[in-house]
Amino acid sequence: MSTDLPDVSGISVGILGGTGDQGKGLARRFAIAGHTVLIGSRNEERAREAAGSLSGLAGPVRGAGNAAVAAEADVVVVAVPWDGHRATLESLRAELDGKIVVDCVNPLGFDKQGAYALPVEEGSAAQQAAAVLTGSRVVGAFHHVSAVLLLDPEVDEVDLDVLVLGDDREATDTVQALANRIAGVRGVYGGRLRNAHQVEALTANLISINRRYKAHAGFRVTDV
Amino acid sequence: MSTDLPDVSGISVGILGGTGDQGKGLARRFAIAGHTVLIGSRNEERAREAAGSLSGLAGPVRGAGNAAVAAEADVVVVAVPWDGHRATLESLRAELDGKIVVDCVNPLGFDKQGAYALPVEEGSAAQQAAAVLTGSRVVGAFHHVSAVLLLDPEVDEVDLDVLVLGDDREATDTVQALANRIAGVRGVYGGRLRNAHQVEALTANLISINRRYKAHAGFRVTDV
Repeated sequence: MSTDLPDVSGISVGILGGTGDQGKGLARRFAIAGHTVLIGSRNEERAREAAGSLSGLAGPVRGAGNAAVAAEADVVVVAVPWDGHRATLESLRAELDGKIVVDCVNPLGFDKQGAYALPVEEGSAAQQAAAVLTGSRVVGAFHHVSAVLLLDPEVDEVDLDVLVLGDDREATDTVQALANRIAGVRGVYGGRLRNAHQVEALTANLISINRRYKAHAGFRVTDV
Repeated sequence: MSTDLPDVSGISVGILGGTGDQGKGLARRFAIAGHTVLIGSRNEERAREAAGSLSGLAGPVRGAGNAAVAAEADVVVVAVPWDGHRATLESLRAELDGKIVVDCVNPLGFDKQGAYALPVEEGSAAQQAAAVLTGSRVVGAFHHVSAVLLLDPEVDEVDLDVLVLGDDREATDTVQALANRIAGVRGVYGGRLRNAHQVEALTANLISINRRYKAHAGFRVTDV
């Protein structure tokens, strides 16, 4: 596959909703890779606590409110719960203007039979982000990474490909390069934003697979 | 992962729409594995021609009309074009009653930007099959296998996992075992039928990946 991706080693990464497991797990891996990481939360105190729990890694981790993180970070990952997704993004339009915004949110419901995909008016969380953040460069990625593995100090390499979706080639290239910064992970272009829904929804299948096989499953793309 | 799957080496496989590339490719691989394969088509003559082109493999391949194939085969794979999906199944309700029916149809549209998922009233092709074939045991599988690879005599092993979806454990186990009969392929349980949409739709992403990387991509499930 093409390896002609930009050097992203110097960029800072902000994580909105960085106190949740997924956001914190990504924060941890980006800090291990040497990035400056900014953990954002509605609650600044919780953001600082989460950042404190990730001290001593190669890159510095700081906590702040979502708006400060959105304004300061070079690339911003959206890892907020689905039910706060739209409102959070609407409140950060100005701060996120012009930036690469990476949506990793999976709109899922849960019942006794497990997880299932929720319908999204815009088609997907990533498309909702693009609809709200008309001035940002929205990319979908990091949907399938297991928070458990990201946070596990025994796991040196995370064994999966990250599908990167978007309509802006420079932005998807940047996010592929960012995914490659996590040991074991490979960023693979996965299609346009209009095909993000199924990648988000596939997380429900991963949950079924994990339950059946007692695994922390991910996907690898073959022949690439 | 669990390997406690049934022995399916003796079963015959019918392929509705077996004259298309996907159906013919699956027919070829099942015949190589030693199965009796019945290629079905609306046009019996074309079915016989397709079967004739697959002679000399380990298992016998015969062609017939869709109804005869549906009635005779032990397991029936639905590989018809999406736009004939519902009508074909409605016409074969009696023949398919009680059988394991494996839907591999991907409801996709195409435009200048590539492939995209079509909305399906029932949620997915597999759920539509289940809604029409109330007496059958419907399973979704074989969505991502590349017809090009299946048909290529230079390709001895097909490098991907087949996600098998369904609500009937015995039926999904049987189809996983059937997937395992294709050299290189592994059948992995992928969730309930209600989570089939995203697996079907993901074929649009594979098409984008193939275009970007000049590949015949598939997916492997890690940690399973």
